[in-house]
Amino acid sequence: MRKLNIAIIGLGNIGSYLFKFLNDNRKILTEKNNCMPIIKYVSAKNKKRKRGIKIKKDQWLNNYLDATKLGDVDLIVELIGGAEGPAKKLVFNALKNRKHVVTANKALIAKYGDQLAKIAERNKVNLEFEASVCGGVPIIRSLKEGLIANKISKIYGIFNGTSNYILSTMDKKNKSFEEVLSDAKKFGYAETDPSADLNGNDVASKLKILSSLCFSSFLNNNIFVEGINNIDKTDIDNSNKLGYKIKLLGFAELINNKIYQRVHPTLIKKESYVAGVDGVLNAVIVNGKPVGKSIIQGEGAGAAATTSALVSDISSISRGNIKFPFSLSSKERKKLIFKNITGRFFSAYLRFEVTDKPGVLSNITKIFSKNKVSIKRLLQNPNKNKKISSIIIVTHNSIDKYLNKTLKEVSRKQFIKSKPKLIRIDES
Amino acid sequence: MRKLNIAIIGLGNIGSYLFKFLNDNRKILTEKNNCMPIIKYVSAKNKKRKRGIKIKKDQWLNNYLDATKLGDVDLIVELIGGAEGPAKKLVFNALKNRKHVVTANKALIAKYGDQLAKIAERNKVNLEFEASVCGGVPIIRSLKEGLIANKISKIYGIFNGTSNYILSTMDKKNKSFEEVLSDAKKFGYAETDPSADLNGNDVASKLKILSSLCFSSFLNNNIFVEGINNIDKTDIDNSNKLGYKIKLLGFAELINNKIYQRVHPTLIKKESYVAGVDGVLNAVIVNGKPVGKSIIQGEGAGAAATTSALVSDISSISRGNIKFPFSLSSKERKKLIFKNITGRFFSAYLRFEVTDKPGVLSNITKIFSKNKVSIKRLLQNPNKNKKISSIIIVTHNSIDKYLNKTLKEVSRKQFIKSKPKLIRIDES
Repeated sequence: MRKLNIAIIGLGNIGSYLFKFLNDNRKILTEKNNCMPIIKYVSAKNKKRKRGIKIKKDQWLNNYLDATKLGDVDLIVELIGGAEGPAKKLVFNALKNRKHVVTANKALIAKYGDQLAKIAERNKVNLEFEASVCGGVPIIRSLKEGLIANKISKIYGIFNGTSNYILSTMDKKNKSFEEVLSDAKKFGYAETDPSADLNGNDVASKLKILSSLCFSSFLNNNIFVEGINNIDKTDIDNSNKLGYKIKLLGFAELINNKIYQRVHPTLIKKESYVAGVDGVLNAVIVNGKPVGKSIIQGEGAGAAATTSALVSDISSISRGNIKFPFSLSSKERKKLIFKNITGRFFSAYLRFEVTDKPGVLSNITKIFSKNKVSIKRLLQNPNKNKKISSIIIVTHNSIDKYLNKTLKEVSRKQFIKSKPKLIRIDES
Repeated sequence: MRKLNIAIIGLGNIGSYLFKFLNDNRKILTEKNNCMPIIKYVSAKNKKRKRGIKIKKDQWLNNYLDATKLGDVDLIVELIGGAEGPAKKLVFNALKNRKHVVTANKALIAKYGDQLAKIAERNKVNLEFEASVCGGVPIIRSLKEGLIANKISKIYGIFNGTSNYILSTMDKKNKSFEEVLSDAKKFGYAETDPSADLNGNDVASKLKILSSLCFSSFLNNNIFVEGINNIDKTDIDNSNKLGYKIKLLGFAELINNKIYQRVHPTLIKKESYVAGVDGVLNAVIVNGKPVGKSIIQGEGAGAAATTSALVSDISSISRGNIKFPFSLSSKERKKLIFKNITGRFFSAYLRFEVTDKPGVLSNITKIFSKNKVSIKRLLQNPNKNKKISSIIIVTHNSIDKYLNKTLKEVSRKQFIKSKPKLIRIDES
């Protein structure tokens, strides 16, 4: 029987879960893959921490980097986290020393994936990172294998469970952003510092990885990122009235051989599939030829779902399924042009809180018309008590640059009472 | 550069599409898989048929079975169709002669898959059949690879595009079964003889394959099958009133180590994911541990989507990813018990068209109560003109056997004016 000797480095929630899972499921995995997975070594920062797992004496490495040097290690599972420091050192050294690497580290892959892939290819070892994007959703394996035939034109979806939980709960439970965020922390759906989940950076890292897999390009930082921090209950209520839901979506699209990458809150039609994906779920939609539109949905986070992804990578390697980390070899990957979205067309939702006095509306619409942004719908909700009125405008397709220029020009007016909003609409 | 010599046997829509696709995409597939796919031979019943593809003289085999004997064939793609005859002969001979096989033939796999798998394993070749279930949806690869870590407890979904198109169009367009079926034939969504799509047999074949993959069991014919032929517009309208949609679903579940396989029209909550999947799409939902609930959706039929699946199988083989056809080797697969659904609990929708006279309702409810089927909701829609009344009953969870007994007993009554309906409800 073939054997695969594994070192797990990093024993937080996920590492400990994986350790237990591989031990408990060794027999079935051996049978499925015709190869026995053996946890040869483990290492973590704090040896003494309670983890609820039984580590044998000779499994523990005092120096985690020894895993990259020992002859009886075939594969290293990196679960330290972070794009720099020990995680980076571990993965670079592992690949250089011809060890396969499986990682859940999206920050590392989004930053150093291209360099790491080159080393892996040169040394004919695997670098697998299914767990780094959307937890248990087998999106990377599907792009690299199940949908390998396809020329992909667009990938988009919900890649962050925390922000999706917040938006869908604000909608359903009629609660404010702050209330829901505090609930999310209580239930373990948001970290103590949830900033990367809320400001769109977490989605951006995942999108970069997916984008380069879909379009056979290199990782690229030209990506528009806007988070959900400014979305309030009023915007959600207005969207409902207009027939939309608000979701934090990531998009990567190939238009005329140029790539657009963007992450932003998006108004999306109530009846669309994505609008119905609530809570902490992740969902990925892929448009490809010849397959058409495919959807993959599942648990995007947590030790259990992440372990499902890690084990799929470990199994793939144990079957000898050698692949290029980014589907194509580094020398075949393309140097595509990444455009920023300023020249792209969007329809948009804009909201202005204004002093309720004559002439304001005509003043606003004049600015729209001057900037060639044409108005599709306009709602005015007066609030007599406060002598303030809410003006909601849905535009026709307009160039992003002009939408922003319009927003800026209206913002400067004296009659504007609070920071105006612009949320892009996706009609797909 | 490694090469994979392929013979395509059967050149209908799918075979011709695949032929063209492999020729047009040879470069990119070679780069991705580090192996060049070469169409060495083709064969089909009628050499002269117009196919819009350029077959070279030395590619054509007059006897399709030669593909199984020639030394310069590594892989045979079987696209003849049918569980018996030439397709069966081809695949058995191919595997016996150590050729890899890729097939889109669900009838063949559902019937002879276990026997074929044994031969493939013995001869260390691949037998891949992604294209046999749900066209372009990479469900088999996901079960065998992306979700390999998981113990699956339930798989269900929409596995037939034709019937889903009919049900969802009846609902949306307010048309009768017959009208929609005739449209479906016109648009190419239904075959001239659509019986296997409508009577549930097509779903049953797919479910058998998925079920044995999920539960590591052997293919088993203990499967309850009911089609959509008896669903009429009235049932769809009633379901809407009750908050449900009607879908033809296939289910395979592992309950207390026993497997239940069933295909039937199902009332499913309007807000559920499956209820929103309309048209010819296919959707598969998998409950697994540790991953939780996963969904995969996409195009279930057509030459383009099917080619996406065939090419994923061909690519997997070209990378040397040797796997057991049913995930586990034949000697490790389990002999599980398959139970029929008579003992399973369901809530159900029943409809009775009755003569509108006193005592009928009490007569019916008495039969329900005698059979221990408790009523959750009851609607009576009188139709004064015809002196007929429609009685709709939604039951609490009841044993299937008793639901059917109740139906039968009520059916015998004089006041029953047309064949009563029983449609099972799924609350998941």
